[in-house]
Amino acid sequence: MTPGVTFTLATSDGNARTGTLALARGVIRTPAFMPVGTAGTVKAMYPDQVRQLGADVILGNTYHLMLRPGAERVARLGGLHAFSNWPYPILTDSGGFQVMSLASLRRIDEDGVTFRSHIDGGEHRLTPERSLEIQGLLDADIRMQLDECVALPAERPAVEKAMALSLRWAERSKAAFGAPTGRALFGIVQGGDIPDLRIHSAEGLVAIGFDGYAIGGLAVGEPQETMFDMIAVTTPALPVDRPRYLMGVGTPEDILGAIKRGIDMFDCVLPTRAGRHGVAYTRYGKINLKNARHAEDPRPLDPYTDCPASRDYSRAYLHHLVKSGEYLGAMLLTWNNLAYYQRLMGQIRAAIAGHRYDDFAAETLEGYAEGDLPALD
Amino acid sequence: MTPGVTFTLATSDGNARTGTLALARGVIRTPAFMPVGTAGTVKAMYPDQVRQLGADVILGNTYHLMLRPGAERVARLGGLHAFSNWPYPILTDSGGFQVMSLASLRRIDEDGVTFRSHIDGGEHRLTPERSLEIQGLLDADIRMQLDECVALPAERPAVEKAMALSLRWAERSKAAFGAPTGRALFGIVQGGDIPDLRIHSAEGLVAIGFDGYAIGGLAVGEPQETMFDMIAVTTPALPVDRPRYLMGVGTPEDILGAIKRGIDMFDCVLPTRAGRHGVAYTRYGKINLKNARHAEDPRPLDPYTDCPASRDYSRAYLHHLVKSGEYLGAMLLTWNNLAYYQRLMGQIRAAIAGHRYDDFAAETLEGYAEGDLPALD
Repeated sequence: MTPGVTFTLATSDGNARTGTLALARGVIRTPAFMPVGTAGTVKAMYPDQVRQLGADVILGNTYHLMLRPGAERVARLGGLHAFSNWPYPILTDSGGFQVMSLASLRRIDEDGVTFRSHIDGGEHRLTPERSLEIQGLLDADIRMQLDECVALPAERPAVEKAMALSLRWAERSKAAFGAPTGRALFGIVQGGDIPDLRIHSAEGLVAIGFDGYAIGGLAVGEPQETMFDMIAVTTPALPVDRPRYLMGVGTPEDILGAIKRGIDMFDCVLPTRAGRHGVAYTRYGKINLKNARHAEDPRPLDPYTDCPASRDYSRAYLHHLVKSGEYLGAMLLTWNNLAYYQRLMGQIRAAIAGHRYDDFAAETLEGYAEGDLPALD
Repeated sequence: MTPGVTFTLATSDGNARTGTLALARGVIRTPAFMPVGTAGTVKAMYPDQVRQLGADVILGNTYHLMLRPGAERVARLGGLHAFSNWPYPILTDSGGFQVMSLASLRRIDEDGVTFRSHIDGGEHRLTPERSLEIQGLLDADIRMQLDECVALPAERPAVEKAMALSLRWAERSKAAFGAPTGRALFGIVQGGDIPDLRIHSAEGLVAIGFDGYAIGGLAVGEPQETMFDMIAVTTPALPVDRPRYLMGVGTPEDILGAIKRGIDMFDCVLPTRAGRHGVAYTRYGKINLKNARHAEDPRPLDPYTDCPASRDYSRAYLHHLVKSGEYLGAMLLTWNNLAYYQRLMGQIRAAIAGHRYDDFAAETLEGYAEGDLPALD
């Protein structure tokens, strides 16, 4: 591993596992959920709130930050941590995924990808070397190789081509990384929903050697069962003593199932995006506060928590805030949702440590499937 | 005064004065600035943040709350304080001002005003009695009479007619109030920019008898000097032992000048609205964070405060947040701005108590006129 980076497994329970990933800026307890701070802010949250919820690491998006405010500008301002008032670990993606999903006029070639900014139409170029350079300018604690990800369903030739290109870019990313002390580089397994391609990708990455291994190209339209199958196919090809990161996932059900299959790290916009759209995550399932049935419901989202957003505001008030488009609606629901996710991760780590993960997962899924507390009379 | 309501003057310094207005739900230190919580939330702030800044009272808008979520609904949910998680005093306006500025198809008659909601076009009716009923359903701590306010400049007949109608509505408002223990009712002086009409209005209200007296119909387009003149004309006609509230005002300069002329209470959307539009209030004046000169400025808005929003985030970061339309931009700037206003009010109260108000006001205006800290090289 890169000097100053250590991954220590603590307990295993079946394929589920707890551990710690230690980096120069702090220790990440795994399994970990990383709130998404796209443009240098976890939307509608103060950074100290995010920390207090138990987030050991947040994610920043290279694509957004390279366009605005620009990586060189962030570097002149002391890096992304000083800039955004978050002194703890940050993982940055490579930018590739959002070039594919947000930018226009993309042209991919062997060397990299050229695209136009979704903000001002300006032309930009991303190569494995430039992506690592940007992530270095941001001074990210965990950096990701540039890869190519195809949407599913896709035919084998397209999946295989993207996987092979991603492997070649993995090698160039490793060379460009430069192994700064206490910073980690992760490779990304591609291969779509085709088991032998996933295994080939994983083995190729392991041969190059990374501090951790991500599984990319899932949660892109395929059924949950396919995602779980691909995780189960891939993890045996990855070293036990390296963290495994399932990119862009997911729902509480996704996370519980992925951890059962050996995943250690997650990121997802669901809790923050849902919070801005009137949706609350609770132990009883997702609740849509826009629904008129909440208009006179004096109960909080969940009285049995220590999060003020979940405990101290009525559903009637949240309904009013969401209907009125008030900032406080997004602020409280995002807070509630990230509190839910971080609480879930803490409970998961405790359950694995107590060798009762399967029971915990079953109970959690059962409660979550209820949909909500019983309605008021 | 209404039972359970007391106003105690502490110190006078010229016409400036400090005191306390005690109500059932708490004590308001005067001079006081009331943050505006239009629709049951001070926009982009958690209620406990507003309190921690030193706000003893916030304002709610009857017009907005009667339309959404509705006064009867708020009453069924336990009143505005329980609904919005703010257990401290709340002043509600009468709704009249916003009927005139926001609603469409207004028809005013002797009995009241009929209008269409700006939200869904539905027809509503507001009379002095219905306004007081709504304010009672909300259980506001300070309630305002319904009045009619004309925009300036205006001809004497129009000003006189609105002032006379407001006086008749004052009498009906007093009768409708019902004097619940620990709740206050304020009358509103009208009369535009015409001194004898202002005096007539004030004397008429004093004859009816209110717990406090507001000066309305100012900061509606007239020069600051006219506003100051009207305050100076009006306050001698008001009882010394009652609080005086200048409605909808204003800038730091407005507030300093009005206190010098005997005003005790203020409300204004400026600090909150400016915060959502990229503008910061500081001891060195207003700063527009949208301006490109802040893009690489590592300095905070004001390092010499204990407000995290003012002290812990660089102008470069705030510029980025504002340009990117991020929630956190509005959250931090609103926080900074309300911190500035509440800090100013605390300093004003201390200066009056120390019999150095004029010096304090002059120093503050001098600093504020600088516009900003010196630019970076």
